[in-house]
Parts: sequence; C-alpha cells; structure tokens
Amino acid sequence: MLRYFTAFLLAALPLSLQAQSSRPGLADLYRETANRIIAAALDDSATYDRIAYLTDTFGPRLSGSQNLEDAIDWILSEMQSDGLDNVRGEPVMVPHWVRGKESLEMIEPRRTSLKVLGLGGSVGTPEEGITAPVLVVRSFDELEERKDEAAGKIVVFNAPFTSYGQTVQYRGNGAIRAAQAGAVATLVRSVASMSLYSPHTGMLRYDEGTPRIPAAAITVEDAEMLQRMQDRGQSIVLHLSMGAHTLPDAQSRNVIAELTGTEYPEEVVVIGGHIDSWDVGTGAMDDAGGCVVSWEVIRLLKELGLRPRRTIRVVLWANEENGLRGGLAYRDAYAESLDDHVLAIETDGGVFKPDGFGFSGTEEAMAMIREIGTLLDPIQAGTITRGGGGADIGPIMREGVPGMGLSVDDTKYFWYHHSEADTVDKLDPHEVNLCVAAMAVMAYVVADMPERLPRRKAPATN
Amino acid sequence: MLRYFTAFLLAALPLSLQAQSSRPGLADLYRETANRIIAAALDDSATYDRIAYLTDTFGPRLSGSQNLEDAIDWILSEMQSDGLDNVRGEPVMVPHWVRGKESLEMIEPRRTSLKVLGLGGSVGTPEEGITAPVLVVRSFDELEERKDEAAGKIVVFNAPFTSYGQTVQYRGNGAIRAAQAGAVATLVRSVASMSLYSPHTGMLRYDEGTPRIPAAAITVEDAEMLQRMQDRGQSIVLHLSMGAHTLPDAQSRNVIAELTGTEYPEEVVVIGGHIDSWDVGTGAMDDAGGCVVSWEVIRLLKELGLRPRRTIRVVLWANEENGLRGGLAYRDAYAESLDDHVLAIETDGGVFKPDGFGFSGTEEAMAMIREIGTLLDPIQAGTITRGGGGADIGPIMREGVPGMGLSVDDTKYFWYHHSEADTVDKLDPHEVNLCVAAMAVMAYVVADMPERLPRRKAPATN
Repeated sequence: MLRYFTAFLLAALPLSLQAQSSRPGLADLYRETANRIIAAALDDSATYDRIAYLTDTFGPRLSGSQNLEDAIDWILSEMQSDGLDNVRGEPVMVPHWVRGKESLEMIEPRRTSLKVLGLGGSVGTPEEGITAPVLVVRSFDELEERKDEAAGKIVVFNAPFTSYGQTVQYRGNGAIRAAQAGAVATLVRSVASMSLYSPHTGMLRYDEGTPRIPAAAITVEDAEMLQRMQDRGQSIVLHLSMGAHTLPDAQSRNVIAELTGTEYPEEVVVIGGHIDSWDVGTGAMDDAGGCVVSWEVIRLLKELGLRPRRTIRVVLWANEENGLRGGLAYRDAYAESLDDHVLAIETDGGVFKPDGFGFSGTEEAMAMIREIGTLLDPIQAGTITRGGGGADIGPIMREGVPGMGLSVDDTKYFWYHHSEADTVDKLDPHEVNLCVAAMAVMAYVVADMPERLPRRKAPATN
Repeated sequence: MLRYFTAFLLAALPLSLQAQSSRPGLADLYRETANRIIAAALDDSATYDRIAYLTDTFGPRLSGSQNLEDAIDWILSEMQSDGLDNVRGEPVMVPHWVRGKESLEMIEPRRTSLKVLGLGGSVGTPEEGITAPVLVVRSFDELEERKDEAAGKIVVFNAPFTSYGQTVQYRGNGAIRAAQAGAVATLVRSVASMSLYSPHTGMLRYDEGTPRIPAAAITVEDAEMLQRMQDRGQSIVLHLSMGAHTLPDAQSRNVIAELTGTEYPEEVVVIGGHIDSWDVGTGAMDDAGGCVVSWEVIRLLKELGLRPRRTIRVVLWANEENGLRGGLAYRDAYAESLDDHVLAIETDGGVFKPDGFGFSGTEEAMAMIREIGTLLDPIQAGTITRGGGGADIGPIMREGVPGMGLSVDDTKYFWYHHSEADTVDKLDPHEVNLCVAAMAVMAYVVADMPERLPRRKAPATN
C-alpha cells in the first residue's frame, strides 16, 4: 500500500503544488504534514482489524446490554495501552429496551412464518399474541382515506424506499398513526434500498395521547406479498407475538481519550462516533467503524509525533440509536467549556470510501475548511459541502459549536443499515484507511493551525 | 406497452428487412408471425401475475410436500380452463427430504446464535445436537494439508464465490471430504455472489464408503467471521442441531399440456421448467417463472390462433432440485417417441431479461436456429450460443434430442438462488414478457417450419 501511495504522490504533487502556488496559506503550511499523515494511514491495516476484533468479540451493542459494557471496558483498556491521554468512561444513564422473543405467522390466506423484527422502543404484545386481519396501505394518505377500515386490524405500511429521510417516517410515526386509526398493531416495510428477505429495525415514537401499540419491521418481500394479496381481494390474517419490554434505565458510558494540545490544551477539537448499536448484526458500519477510525486518528498522530497546539478529543458516544443520551450527557458535562470547542466532527455514515466533509459553520470558517480540504485532494477526499454534523454532536452544535460530518460513498448504506447484514465484511480495509487519513488531516490541521477556527458567538453569550 | 412496442417495430423493421433481404428463408417466412407473437407477449401482464399468484398462494414447493401437490393441482385446473390440449399429471416418485428444526449456536469465543440452513439430503444430528471445535479451511487443498487437525471437529468450508460451477463443489462434496478427514459435521459458506446475512441451501452428495455427517450452509458473513477468529488463534466451539431426515419416496407428477400439431402431431417440441423448488423463499425465480413462461407460450399461441404443424408440449418437471426424478421419468415414459422429439427447450435460469438461447445440436441445425434467432433481434433476444440445455432435459438430450436453454441476464441470479430471497418481487413483468416472446417465437417456428430440425441419429440407432 505504501509503495503504491508514494508513487501516486510523486505523480500528483507537482500538479497540486502548481494549483496552490498562487494561494499561500493553510494548505501550503500543512501539505508536507498532511502527506505524511495520509501515507502513514494508508500503510496501516490495524484499523480494520480492530473493527473486526471489536465486532466479532463483543457482537451487537444495544444500550443496556452487557455486550456494550464489555466492549467499552475493552476499548478503555486498549486506549490505555495505546498511551492516549486522559482515557476515561463518563457515566450516562441509557434506556434499556429488550427485544424478547418475536414471531409472525400468516394464518390466512396461507399458513406460513414471516420474518419479523420489532422496532426499538416498541411495547410487546399480550403473551398470547395478537391475531387480527390486515389492512395494507402505501402511505399515511392512504391510511387517512381508509381509516374506517383500520379499527381492530394490523396496519401494514408498505411504503417503497425513496430516501431514508422520506421513508423512515413510517418507521418513526407509523405506530402513532396506525393507533390513531384504531389499529391493534402495525408492521412497517423495512426502510431498505435493497432486500434479500432482510428486516431492518430502528427507533419508533409514541406520543402521549395515543395508545401504544406493538410495532415491528417486516421484509420488503413480505410487504409486497401482503399488498398483492390485498389487491387480489384475499383476506389476510396475521398472528404477531412480541416479548419486547423496557427495563429501568441502565448505566453506560461515553468513552473519551485525548491527544492533549501543546499550546492551548483547553481548546478542543472533538471527533467521534457512537459505540452503541442495534441488536442485530454487529454494528460494524453503524458505528464501530466510525468509533475505531476516530480512535485511530489520535493513536496515529501520537505515533507520528504530531501533537497539535490544541487538544483532539475522541468521544465514543453511548446511545445514539435509541435515546441520544450520550450526546446530551456530553453537552451537559462540558457546558462550561463549549465555547472552547473549536470543532466537532462525527463519522456515523459508515467508513466507506470518503469524498470529504459536510460543514456547518460561518462563511469565514468554511473558506478555511475548504482550503484544508485541498490537502485531501490526493486521495479524492477533499470535497467540502455545506451542512453536516451528526446526531451525537447535534446537542453541542445547537450550543454554537461548529459541526462537521465525514461524507462517504453511501450507495449501499441502506442495504445493511440496522440489519443482520451490518457486519465488518461490508467494509474495505483500504477505504477504512482513507477515512482515517481524511479525519486525521482535518482534525490535526484545525487543532494545530495558528488561527482558531472562527465561529458565531454562542446564542447564550450574544 | 403495446403502443411503445408498435412504435419501436415501425422504426426497427425496415432495417431488419434490409439486413435480411439477400437471405430468404426461415426468417422471412416467419417474420410477420414472429412480430405478432412478440407484440402480443409484450402487451400481457398475466404471466407475471400468474407467477405471483402461484408463489404467493402455494409457497415453496419442495418434492414430497403438500405445497407442491396443491400447486400442481391448481396448475392442472388452470391449464384445463385455458383450453390447452391433453392436460395431465404424469406420476413420478420423488425423494421426500424434510428439513426439521435447525439451530447453530456459537459457544466459544462468544455465545450467540448463527443462522444455519441445512443442505438438501443431509442427515440430522443426534437429538442432543453436536458440540465440537471448529476447523475452518478455504479449500479442499487446505483441508488435505490440515487433515490431521480435522478429526472430531466441525469442518467449515469458507470458499469465496468465484463461479457457481467452481464454488458449488464445496456444497456438493464438502460432507464427503470432511467426513473422510474425520469431521463430525460440516458447514459450508453459502454459494452466493452477494449476501445480506442470507444462507443458501442446495443438494449435497454422500458416497457409499464414507460416514454420512450432517451438513448445512452458513452465511458468507459468519464464514468470514469464523475464519477471522481462527486466524487470530481463537478457539471456536459450535453447537449444531438439525432435525433433517428422509421419508419414503412420495408420489408427485410431471405436469404436461400441449398445443397439438396440425400436420405432424407425433413430432414434438418440448418446452418447460421445473415445478418443484427448495423449501425457502417461494421458488419464484427457480423455477416458477420458467414454468409459467413455458405454459404461457402455448396459451398465447392458442389465443393468437397460431397452431403449428408439430406439437408443442409443455412439461413442468417434478424434482429438479433434489433428484431429477421428473426428467428421468419423462425420458422413460417417452422412450419410444424420443426420435420424434424435434427439440427440447428448458428455462431454469430465472426469467430475467433474455438475450437468446444456448443450443446443443448439429451444425446444420445451429444454422437454422441462428436464422430463427434473428426474428428476436427486435427485442435483443436473438443471440444463439453453442452448448445449452437444462438439468431436466439432460436425460433426453443424452438420448439424442437436440437441447436448448433460454439465456438471461444472470447478474443477480446467485444473490437469490436457493435462499429466502427467491421471491417474485425480484422479477420484472416486462422482462418476464420478453422471455415469453423469445420462447414462443423459437418454439413456434421450430414446431411449424416446413423442414424438421435436423439432428444426429440417436446413439442407440447408429
């Protein structure tokens, strides 16, 4: 890998220098260092191996599970071995939802088992399950039109995938809308852009005034089959059984490690992902990859002897998937120092081939970030787009911290997302290393550059 | 669809006529009829709907199952309603393998359930299951090198997919090779070109002198995980439980219907697929699609009033998947008339976008088939390649009957093959209709053309 990359740099550098020659500044100041970071990142396979070890050894890491705590213990211990600074687990109370046993049987028109995967936060069914006729709808609008038919039924939302943002509303709000129409349970077509009979879970919402009905995902295949059966005028009866329940909140931790700054240690660039996952697959993409890549950034910089002026703080948040308690706890714990949070970068879109970052900040800051981005042109990861962040850094971004998210090739993201297929084999070691390179260059330069990244004054101090 | 196609023909025909003008013969004789057949086939959505109804209503159709017999009853009744000739079920005794309950637990290094899908024909485990350490190998060669380590273990074959023909040897012969090395069971990485944690079944072989050990497929994901664990030096222990067993042979049927020839009714063009399937998914691609497309060919020709000089016989064979008893029974039942079998065409590669046919016959016959193929140029389905047939027509091809297989875009075939993902949503109604068009033109012209398709004399009569 290194040999290939060196040859590549020799070819790419003159052009790059030429393009930049009339524009001295951050890029020129950091080009040599950036190239050194990139070369070292690409010469390393430890990152992929660590993602594999973490996910193989501890499995999925749902908030409240022993798996999650065991994984956190191991990470803290490894971070200590890596010699990182101020390694610590900071307490967070997290929701403790337990899936329990689940089954879905078709009674009519044909007796068979269908695959089912309860939605996070769902209540269970009574012990004897729920047997009910089915109403299939393609949209909330169709449910509204047919709401007189929904009472006492299991409402199936069969909304084809368009974009995640659009389609996920059925997973998020389906239980409320179905219950408002009088349904006794709801099944949601998995929010997935490809299916091999694979159900995808994720969080649902309930609201105060509406009965909480059990809600689960079914496969794209079965949603379409139920639709065809209904369209033929066949009567459909299903039997749903779910043991889902919620236990009292459990103790978990945000995992933190630092590379302490040499000149302004109190000024912080936060980078990270979330260490919890859903309870299917092993959460390799969502988001063990983002965690280990962020962790690797400071391990690698330390190994290279590159200690920046400001502190780089890795945070592996707890409970992104079903509560966001880690991000909220971080905001509260560091409320006094958020003004000194120079930048927060989250990677939670899978550590596939990176193409750059999305940035949310002032125009002046954007210009600087774009210039830093050019340092990633040799690996085609320098495109900076407007808007970007992440769920876990949302709470501190709302307090005025500039936010950024790593952008990657997400073509297949929703093939795997929240399903049994989220496993490390979907990642590519070279692409993972490219993510390390991109994150390390961006974090290092922002943490080290002479001028602090400009930002709006926090609303509270305005 | 019809409007689009008519416009398309108007544009395509002059060019097509021009190319053929210096070469009168079969193509000129049948162009008008072929275009009529194509237009009618593409104007029809009944074929897709029938595949959907068949697979939704009867589900998977493993040999020996009630599902298969119910499906056959329905098809026979529908064929009668369609007014086809000589509709009948011809008795075939088929193997009756039953999957039973299955589970696979990892005991070390991490307690978790792994997905498992027994291979067809496998014996079961003792009731208490088999708990054993694991040896992972990537090939038979590696097993040979490490055979001293295999005794008493569960051997996992982790051979990456290259081509079906290459990779399927581990599913077919893995149980024999592992048992020869002293293994107590074997697990085979699914033969699949893409995986979303989806196991793929299929037939295995045992041989006489070797102990019959239980054999099952695991997912690509888990095969790779077990490999990584072994490569790290971790000890792996699995617990496999399989209730698989084989009952006495069961009665099933080859389904037959005809469009009787007007001049040479005793001369026959056979077309068909297999009506049995594996017991996962609903066997829509493998091979309900091939069955319904073949059936539709004669229904459509009849509707168009196109009754050829020779008979077109649709055969939906029983038991392609785990015994080939249907193909063998057909050969035996029609031994006396095989000399009058002009051609046999099988479609068993999924009814995806067709590009032509593979043909096995004499050079003289190939030239005629290629000329007929040009009639399918308007739908880009006229490419005739050498070699082709199908498992079910293999027995009569070996008796001298020229054989042919429909060629389709098989890019995704091994994503779905023998898995829960083999469902009708993977097919496209327009592509299904293109298959009907291609099959109907080829079958009609060969059945109707003045000269009988030439063939080698059957070996027995030489």
